[in-house]
Formats: sequence, C-alpha cells, structure tokens
Amino acid sequence: MRGKLFDRLEGKEMKTKKVAVIGASGYSGEELVRLLLNHPHAELVAVTSRQNAGQTLAQVFPKFASHPKSKTLRFSEPKAGLLAKQADVVFLALPHGVAAEYAVPLLDTGLVIIDLSADFRLKSAESYKEFYAHDHPAPDLLPKAVYGLPEIYREQIKKASLVASPGCYPTSILLPVIPLLKAGLVKSAGIIADSLSGVSGAGRKVEADYLFCECNESVRAYAVPKHRHLSEIEEQLSLAAGSDVTIQFTPHLIPVNRGILTTLYLAPAEKLTGGKISACYATAYGQEPFVRLLEGDSLPDTKNVTGTNVIEIAWRLDPRTGRLIVMSAEDNLIKGASGQAVQSLNLRCGFPETAGLV
Amino acid sequence: MRGKLFDRLEGKEMKTKKVAVIGASGYSGEELVRLLLNHPHAELVAVTSRQNAGQTLAQVFPKFASHPKSKTLRFSEPKAGLLAKQADVVFLALPHGVAAEYAVPLLDTGLVIIDLSADFRLKSAESYKEFYAHDHPAPDLLPKAVYGLPEIYREQIKKASLVASPGCYPTSILLPVIPLLKAGLVKSAGIIADSLSGVSGAGRKVEADYLFCECNESVRAYAVPKHRHLSEIEEQLSLAAGSDVTIQFTPHLIPVNRGILTTLYLAPAEKLTGGKISACYATAYGQEPFVRLLEGDSLPDTKNVTGTNVIEIAWRLDPRTGRLIVMSAEDNLIKGASGQAVQSLNLRCGFPETAGLV
Amino acid sequence: MRGKLFDRLEGKEMKTKKVAVIGASGYSGEELVRLLLNHPHAELVAVTSRQNAGQTLAQVFPKFASHPKSKTLRFSEPKAGLLAKQADVVFLALPHGVAAEYAVPLLDTGLVIIDLSADFRLKSAESYKEFYAHDHPAPDLLPKAVYGLPEIYREQIKKASLVASPGCYPTSILLPVIPLLKAGLVKSAGIIADSLSGVSGAGRKVEADYLFCECNESVRAYAVPKHRHLSEIEEQLSLAAGSDVTIQFTPHLIPVNRGILTTLYLAPAEKLTGGKISACYATAYGQEPFVRLLEGDSLPDTKNVTGTNVIEIAWRLDPRTGRLIVMSAEDNLIKGASGQAVQSLNLRCGFPETAGLV
Amino acid sequence: MRGKLFDRLEGKEMKTKKVAVIGASGYSGEELVRLLLNHPHAELVAVTSRQNAGQTLAQVFPKFASHPKSKTLRFSEPKAGLLAKQADVVFLALPHGVAAEYAVPLLDTGLVIIDLSADFRLKSAESYKEFYAHDHPAPDLLPKAVYGLPEIYREQIKKASLVASPGCYPTSILLPVIPLLKAGLVKSAGIIADSLSGVSGAGRKVEADYLFCECNESVRAYAVPKHRHLSEIEEQLSLAAGSDVTIQFTPHLIPVNRGILTTLYLAPAEKLTGGKISACYATAYGQEPFVRLLEGDSLPDTKNVTGTNVIEIAWRLDPRTGRLIVMSAEDNLIKGASGQAVQSLNLRCGFPETAGLV
Repeated sequence: MRGKLFDRLEGKEMKTKKVAVIGASGYSGEELVRLLLNHPHAELVAVTSRQNAGQTLAQVFPKFASHPKSKTLRFSEPKAGLLAKQADVVFLALPHGVAAEYAVPLLDTGLVIIDLSADFRLKSAESYKEFYAHDHPAPDLLPKAVYGLPEIYREQIKKASLVASPGCYPTSILLPVIPLLKAGLVKSAGIIADSLSGVSGAGRKVEADYLFCECNESVRAYAVPKHRHLSEIEEQLSLAAGSDVTIQFTPHLIPVNRGILTTLYLAPAEKLTGGKISACYATAYGQEPFVRLLEGDSLPDTKNVTGTNVIEIAWRLDPRTGRLIVMSAEDNLIKGASGQAVQSLNLRCGFPETAGLV
Repeated sequence: MRGKLFDRLEGKEMKTKKVAVIGASGYSGEELVRLLLNHPHAELVAVTSRQNAGQTLAQVFPKFASHPKSKTLRFSEPKAGLLAKQADVVFLALPHGVAAEYAVPLLDTGLVIIDLSADFRLKSAESYKEFYAHDHPAPDLLPKAVYGLPEIYREQIKKASLVASPGCYPTSILLPVIPLLKAGLVKSAGIIADSLSGVSGAGRKVEADYLFCECNESVRAYAVPKHRHLSEIEEQLSLAAGSDVTIQFTPHLIPVNRGILTTLYLAPAEKLTGGKISACYATAYGQEPFVRLLEGDSLPDTKNVTGTNVIEIAWRLDPRTGRLIVMSAEDNLIKGASGQAVQSLNLRCGFPETAGLV
Repeated sequence: MRGKLFDRLEGKEMKTKKVAVIGASGYSGEELVRLLLNHPHAELVAVTSRQNAGQTLAQVFPKFASHPKSKTLRFSEPKAGLLAKQADVVFLALPHGVAAEYAVPLLDTGLVIIDLSADFRLKSAESYKEFYAHDHPAPDLLPKAVYGLPEIYREQIKKASLVASPGCYPTSILLPVIPLLKAGLVKSAGIIADSLSGVSGAGRKVEADYLFCECNESVRAYAVPKHRHLSEIEEQLSLAAGSDVTIQFTPHLIPVNRGILTTLYLAPAEKLTGGKISACYATAYGQEPFVRLLEGDSLPDTKNVTGTNVIEIAWRLDPRTGRLIVMSAEDNLIKGASGQAVQSLNLRCGFPETAGLV
Repeated sequence: MRGKLFDRLEGKEMKTKKVAVIGASGYSGEELVRLLLNHPHAELVAVTSRQNAGQTLAQVFPKFASHPKSKTLRFSEPKAGLLAKQADVVFLALPHGVAAEYAVPLLDTGLVIIDLSADFRLKSAESYKEFYAHDHPAPDLLPKAVYGLPEIYREQIKKASLVASPGCYPTSILLPVIPLLKAGLVKSAGIIADSLSGVSGAGRKVEADYLFCECNESVRAYAVPKHRHLSEIEEQLSLAAGSDVTIQFTPHLIPVNRGILTTLYLAPAEKLTGGKISACYATAYGQEPFVRLLEGDSLPDTKNVTGTNVIEIAWRLDPRTGRLIVMSAEDNLIKGASGQAVQSLNLRCGFPETAGLV
C-alpha cells in the first residue's frame, strides 16, 4: 500500500504539507498546535476536539490569539472522512485506547498518522494488555507502526505510515541508555531510572491531585513500582540489548510546569573507562541536532531545555561504587511529546529535520 | 567530667533550661530560634551572629516580631566566656570547620553543646579530611560526640555533653535504612539513595545558583557522585551493618522552599516478604512520635511533613525486579536539622521528647 | 435566650470546651481542624463532611496522622441533633447558602455557632441577594449575628451566639482602613483596594482554573469589577465612616499557596501628617496581639505572616501625589479565615485570646 | 550626520545587518542574544561582558549550546573602536550611568545604538538626576534620543541613531494609557498603576532579596512610593496629555520568573461609554502586531504572553464607582525589554517589524 502522501512527495521539491491534529485540547496537543502554526512547511488545516468543537483556536488558547490563523481555524468534531480530504498527515493527541479507534479508518484512507498516545508504541499486544488493562483495540496494526524516536529509528520513520511517538519518560531514558547497551558498555541487568517530571506530564486532567495547592511545595513519587511507561521502555531496551531487559523506574512529581530530569544508575561491563563512554555517545549523538552532550562540570538542568526540542545528557563514572550515573533533561511536552512528533513529521515528509523546531 | 547542666538536673523536676544559639542567621538557625522561642521548657537567653550583632530578633527576622522577646533579645558577638555564664545548653548553627573552634572552649566550661554542623558527626578524622578538604580542627573531641539521631541513639544522647546533630540528607536516608540493615533484611552492598531537596538546604548563601530565577522552573542533580554527606551516611550505615558500606547518593535541587524526598533502592536478603519489612519497621518505629509509617496506597509527600518534625516512610517490594524501594519525606530544616536538635535537647534535659515540637 | 455554653461557663474556671467542625474538607476547614487539634482549651469532638463520612482524620488529612486523635476521630454525616449533644461550639466551614441551613437548627438547640461562610456577614438581606444571586436563606438571623473581626467587635463577640467570621479579602482591607475612617483621617470616597491572593483562597475546588499548570508562572486579575466580598467590605466601611462607602476592589490570583497582600489607595482628609497616622494606628492596634505595625523601611511580606494569625500593616504618605498608601499582609487561611474564627472562639469562651494561635 | 547604516540601507533590498550586544550577561541581555541568534536578518557578530570575557556563548548560556554559533562566538571586552568595525547596530544592555559612557564614542563612529538602559529615556536631565541620584553622563545626547516604544514612535524610530528602549513597567503602563489620554477619554489627574512583576525584572543581581527562598511563597510591594521608572512614565504621559501628569505607581514582586501584570485605575472624562473606549483602542492598536485587545470575558494573564513580544490589554468600566479599570500583561524581558528593542531594530533597518519576534 502506498499512501497518497508518498505519491505526492515523489519527485517533488519541498512542498507544504497539510496537517491536522485530533484531540488538540490537552497540553501536548496545545504545544503541537503551537509548533505547527509556526512550521515553515506545514499548514495546519484542521484541529478537532469534542469539548471545544465550534470554537476558534484563539478562544481555546488565548496565547495563540495573535497568530493570523487563530481566529479563523475552528475546532471541529473529529470525522475520518472529512480529515482524509483535508490533510496529508494527521496527529493523534488522544488518550490511549481512543487513539487506535481513530487510527484505523484514517490509515485506510492512505493518510500518514503520527500518534502521540501509547497505542502503537508496543510490538506486543500482551504487554499492552498487562500495562493498560484492556485488550489492544487494533493489534493488527502493531507490526506496521514505527517507534518514533528519530535518533534511533530515523530511516524507518522516513517510510512509516504509522509513527508511534514515544512517551515523555521513555524518551528521557532510552536516548541515554540505548547507545550504551548497543555498544555493550553496560550490563542490561539492574538498570534503575529515577525520574522527576513537571506537572504538565499529567496532562490537563481536572483532578484534585493536580491542583496548584496540592503540587506546589510538594514532591512525591507515584505509580511505584509499575508505571505504564515501563512497557515501552523495556521493549526498546530489550531490542537494544538483544535480550530481555527489566528495569526499575520511579517517577516523581515536582512543582514545575515542564521538564523531566532522569537519573540513571547503570552497572558497567568490565573495564569501562570514561574514554569509551565519551566515544560511544559522540558516535551515537555527536551529529544529532537535538541531543546535547554536556562537557566539563556541567550537569543537565531542565531550565536549559524547556521550550526546546533538545535533550541534555551527562554522565559520571563513580570510582567509589564502580557505577555509571547518567543524567538527562528534556522538555516533556516537546522532546518528550510534540516536538519529537514534529521531528518525525519532518523526516517523513522530507523536510529538514529541524524545521519548525529551532 | 560532669557538666553543670547535669548537676542542675539531678533530682529536680522539669525546670526551664537556658539556651543560646551561636550563628543564628541562616535558615536552620532561624528555624531553631523559632522552635526555642516557643519551647515550654527552654528559655532563649542569647543569639549570636557577627553580621547581625547589635540588632534585635525582630529586626533580623520580621516574622518573629510578634513574639514578646523579639524586641528585647539582641544578637551579640559570640564569646565563650559570656555564653558560659548565661546558658546551660548552646546550639552551634555554624559552618563546618568554624563550629569546632567554638565547641572546644564552651565544652571546657561544662556546657552542653548541640552542634548542627558536620564537625562532630564522624568518628574518623581521616574521613573528615577526605570529604571536607581540611584537617579536623579538634580530633580529640570526636570520640566524645554522640550522633544526634534520637531514634537510634536515644540513650547516648541523654548523657551526651556534645551532640552532633545529623545532616538533612543523612536523616532521610539513615532512618529508613538502619532498621533493615540491623535486621539483616537487605544487603549492605549496592544501596542507592536518590534525594530531592528544597532550596533552603543550601542555606542562606547569596550565590547566583540559588537566585529565584535560577531555581524556579529548574531541576538538577549536583555534587555527583561524591557529596560530603556520604561520609556520615556511610559511617552510620557501616555501624548498623557491622561491615563497611559504600552507597550511591545523588542529591537534586528542586524548586520548593523546604522538604527532602529520598527514594532508596535496596537489594533484599533472601526470601524477603512484605510481612517481615512491616514487622521490622513496626518494631523499630511503631512507638516513635516523629516517624510516620505509611499504610495502604499512601506514599510520602513533602507537603505532609513540612513545618513538622515528622519523617514519613513507605516501601514497596517490586515483584518484577525483586528490589525493595523505600521512600522517605521530611522537612530538611526541622527533622533534618533544627527540630531534631531540639529533640536532642529534650532528651538531654529530661524534657518530654516532643516538647516544643508539636 | 441563654445558650447552654453560657450557663456552663458561668462562675467557672477556664474549662475545655467541646467543638465540632461542619464541612471540614476544604482548605479552611483543614486549617481549622489543625488549630483545634492543638488548642489547649478546645476538644475537637466531631468533624463532618458528606464526601469523607466514615473516614478518619488521618485518612483524609495525612499531615495530621501523627496526632493521637487522628486515627480515632472519624468524619460523620452532619446531623444537628447529634452535634447538639456532643458539642458546645460548632464551626461551619460550608459554602454560602448551605451554612445558613445548618445554622438555624443548631442555634435552636442553644449551641454557639461560628460561621466561616458569607451567610451572616451582612446586615442587609438585599445586599446579600445582590451579591450572592439568591434570597438569603434565614434573614431573621441577620440582626443577631456579630461580625467576627475581634479587633473591631471584641465585646460583641464575647456575648454572641452567632459569629459571622469575615472573609479573607475583607480582613485584609478592613483592619487597615477602619481606624483611619473612624478617626476621620481619610476620605470615605475614592478608596481603592488592590489585592493579591494565593490559590488556596479559591478553596479546594477541582476546576481547570486552579490546576498547577494554569496558576504557576501566571498572574491575573479576576471578578473585575464586582467581587462578592465587596458587599461586606462596604457595609463595614460604611459603619466605620458613618455614611455610605463604595470602593474599588480588584482581586488577583498569584502563584503562592497562601497569603494575601493588599495595597490600598486613600485620599487623606486635610492636613494629614505621618504623626497622625502613626498615632491613629498605635491607638487602634498598639496592644493587639495579632496586628503588627511595621516601622522604618519594612513593608508587609506574606512570607512573614503565613502560618500565623498576624496581619502586618505599613503605610506611606506620598508627597508627590498627596495620597496615602497602606499595605497589609495576612495568611488568607488563618487571620483571613480559621485563625480569626478561633480568635472568636477564645473570646466567646473566655479563653486567652491568643490560645492555640501562637 | 548620517550613519553608515543609513548609507548601507539606502536603495537596497533587505540585507542582513551585523549586530553586537554590549553587556550580555544579565537576563535582558541573554534574552536579546536569544532573539538575535534566531533573527532572519540580523547577524550577531559580537557580545561583550567584562565578567565573561573569553568564554563562548555556550559556556555562559548553556541553553543556547545547540546553536551553531554558540561555540564559536566568544564574549569580548567592550571596545568601541573594535565594535565600530564589526557591527552596524549595537545594543547596550548595561546598567544606567554605564550605558551612556559607551554610547558616546559608538555614536561618534556612526553606529546605530539601541540602549536598553534608562540613560536616554528622559528628555530632562534634571528629572534624571532626581530619580537616578547622579548627574546625567551625556546630557547633550538626550534631545537626539528617540523613546523606543514602536506603537507610539514608529516613524521616529525608523530614522533614529539612538533609540532609548523603554523600561518594563513603563511599557505595561504607557501602551494602555497613552491612547486614552490622547483621545481625552480619561483625566490626566489621579492615575494609579499597580504593577506585579516577576523576579527576572530585578536582573541577575546576586542579592539576598532575590534568593529563591526569599521570593518563593512571598509577595511584597517595594520602592513605595517613588520608583525610578516613574520619571519616564510621567514624562511620556505628560507628552500624551499635553500637560504635566503625576501618577501613583506601586510595583510588587511576585514569585514567577517572567511577566508583568499592571492594573490601572483611571477617572473617565465626562460621558465615557464602553463604545468610545473600544473605538479608541481599536483605532490605536487594531492593526498592531504585538498588542492584543482582549474581548468578552477574557482578562490579561501573564502566562498567555510570556515568551512572546505581545502585550494583552483589557478594560472594565465600573458602573458602581464610575471608574475605568485597565489591565495589561506582558513578558517583562521581551515586550518589556529585549523584544521591544528588536522591534526597534526591525523598524530602523527596514526589516518587517515582526522579524525574529514570532
């Protein structure tokens, strides 16, 4: 099957693509809309949201009200047939379980789908059921989906009709760990990931736990010891290691709007030196536009990445314990969600990978 | 040597003790002053600070200005002889290195000293030099000092002339881990402590790193992999385990005023069950007024302990990894510093242990 | 009518009173419970809340879990008859409209009521209807209610069977302005009050506007130009001035948990001098335990009053504009709500006015 | 005198201009660097800072480290002669008093200067001395300087050799008030401006007042009643009114990184209607790319403008008091400083006014 986008792209110069966002009322959806409104090669032609249907972008997101399109583009009800006529690429910013329902008919029309939910991130429908507590709504599509981590799956994304954009925590863990595992520099057993996330990671859920007074001047772990994101983290790490990987993952909620800081504890394989680690990361990410390898005394700080699609990575080899500590910082809504999805858009459409992201 | 306090206490009913605070201008000192101003059995007779000498409490700490004593009690220059005449117990809230200088002459006059600095927390002067980068100023006193963690050293504190009140991070780590090590429920190797601290933990240092705009909307690790507090943590854990313990410790700075949340990763000894852990903690802390063992789904949250001398502890045994996760939350300035020091005061003077702390 | 409390108090030494809190699940109710649990002369015998009925205090408010009573005292359904048997004084921490329904039967049983809602703050049922958009549920009780601002109505509160505890914004405005109006130092026309409130002022409402990410890094005015609190502010200012007063009031929401800062703009009556203002405030509040008149360069700062029942007041006479600027700072949940209600309890029961509040 | 820039521009298509920033180490300087690095028609050729001389942009500002230029562009010592050879336009991001010293020799070389300090904002050297407490360092230049508020002085900025970019508070006050004064809709007497500013407004000053723990959970007024910005606000309002204007201005510090919210209290001239106000603002700003006139129930919120060069304005006519309330929100570092300076750059160089700002 060749989608209509592929046909259109063939043999043509960089041309604006029409994009739509389904479920654009959450924080990731909002950030995605912001990025697409300012993208040099994408034209946002439709945004859908049941709760906001009929309202303009300016009404729903006052911060976009100065954009010329904000007063004309209105939220509509999501209808597959209509979207197929309007758009070349459709982003799904929907809850898991719901996203798959929309993906099926849209894929049938030949559209390219970039899904920000968890629905197509796993290869295993069993694992999905274990972690998401319901049967996978469209297991047949799982083999077709490409995991949208551009630094790892760049070539596959370029040809994908269904991109499963990674979760925010997984991105902050996979990018630092995968090169080390692939190079055999660390053991695949005993990995610990301790992550701190800003409150926007919970989405725009109107629940008491996320009220200002419940989060401000508060820090707490949650979903210990089995957070849903473990499923995709472990599946990807297992692919990198070539064997089953089980990790320890503890997410914490901290009072910032945005940002994830992850501290990783890894057991080196024998005779690991700093030089090998540096070389490994330089090879993996030295040319990557969105991975910043810190040098000298610098350590990742979320304030240096929020608002950008960059992930910062630094490491320390501890001579006292023999352990390797790796830290990463990213904006959970950008590199951890919408920015990464736009990066996939750029790859898929043949745009410069950094288009609309710097 | 029997100090004058001991003589005075003997055979008497609970009687007000006169206390002084040396170096009362930092956040811990301020919190200590607050606790002592409201203590039912302590009378604050002197506060010293070079930078604030001559000013009243009300001028330096506007928030105490409604306390009757705030307009009459003035900061003075710290002079050992004078303090010895005024006070029964002296608290040192000074930087490491400086505290020891004051402690020596004050101890000679027979006063009881409760030191909030790191100067007397270690038994080993070598370890002090390794971690604090200078020779210990008074190594002869090290064997006399009692580590002021009341839940562990209650009986020793009752008789101590020199109490070394623990650091904030160590308190958050030692209280959860010591009972498990003593009971042999966890291995002493491979312990990881990942801690998140509010900015007051850095003290009232006027440095760019602690400016509002540098901390707000920011999260970062620091002092990786060898923070100074490792020295006292490892010395105390080694005592509990009966063998040398080396741990991994990663402190992070998060944008709250107060609070430390520590997440601990521990390897169970064979056949560990939830029942054994519960029983271990219940035995160790079931009657402790300032340790709250969480039950059910509850996890520690700094907002539930800030402003109090309580430490919250909860744990999860992870069937997937076989690891034990323990979490604790405390107010770094109270249970992690000034409140714990007052708890030692209460023990030493024969006051109810909770006096002035609830 | 003489209530049973009055009978019990007569001719007796200070004796513990039994108190109940109806509607103890919001932030004000929680703070009230905290104060009453630690009150030396009050015994908390009942807390009610429909949504939490059956749960213990410890389950609903983890931060109180170390208090001995927290595991035995359970939330019950609010029933007037039962409460009448249990308590001497009942606090109502309920929404306006609902509070009055509970007040009527409880008053009939002879209990003393301290109401934290807006239901009995106004003398005028017409004004109530104008600002609260429904008929007053019990207009006959309005003349009996005493406005619970102790610094102004101390003697009346001592004898009241129904105390209407003031709103948070009104407290921050009335205490600074009333003495000036009574002394004729400022004009009653043209008063402007510009107030900044922490998010807890909105209560524990689970609404999108109060989510962390909507409040953090945000500042906004709201309810411009006619906030409900105007009704009680203007009624009280009119009483002080002896003529009708209409003011401008603009509340703003700022990202702190607690605290109200109010900046007042006043037109001096002729020949106003700084000496007269100082003298006026010294006369009004010089002996008040909970009013702190700032001197020198100091200006009110919410961080110096949060956690206390104190209101800070400072003023500046501007020679350039001829205007008087008065600023106040308070904790909206304590002096602006629960602390002030306990202050009324103390007055009503003959306890020291500061009992349980320092 | 015709500067070299003007010569170069004449008769040419839009061409990249070389720009330099002197004093680029504060928050405004950093934001200016960020904007210029991403400006489509400006090339940042030099940044100077005594404290950072020799370091690269990436070392000083980790958040720019992914920009290709960040590792090659180094901070230098500021030298007029050198800058004149390198740049067409020089931005001064220096403290008042210091900026003028640099401006004089640079102007002599024919460069265009855009000054972000207060040094050239006033026409009156006497007023400068009154508010800044020292003689003006270059009073002869005052008549040549153009006040860089593009919405008011667009045509003058296009031809200016010295642009005095407005202060953050003044921008938030002048844009809402000037059109009303010019149209005679409000009285020039009795204007009150109550402003709330994020902490970055204080610059990167390493002072105790701006430490995280002193600002977080704190709100306070400062510089009451005579803040320095009054001088430029009143000079500009007087020009708009055609007569001397004296206003009341109260700045407050609130715990956000960025954003100013100003609430203005104005006395309408006779028979003011909402229609007239709407029409006045629509005429003044209906076509302005960076002024957003809010409609319906919307009120300004700093979170909707931070990160942008937009100022939001809304108003309410209060039938109870007869007063007009106008509110504005802006990012103090962008529309209140660096963004506005870039807006002036665009005007002066003939670039699209929004270049690099959307």
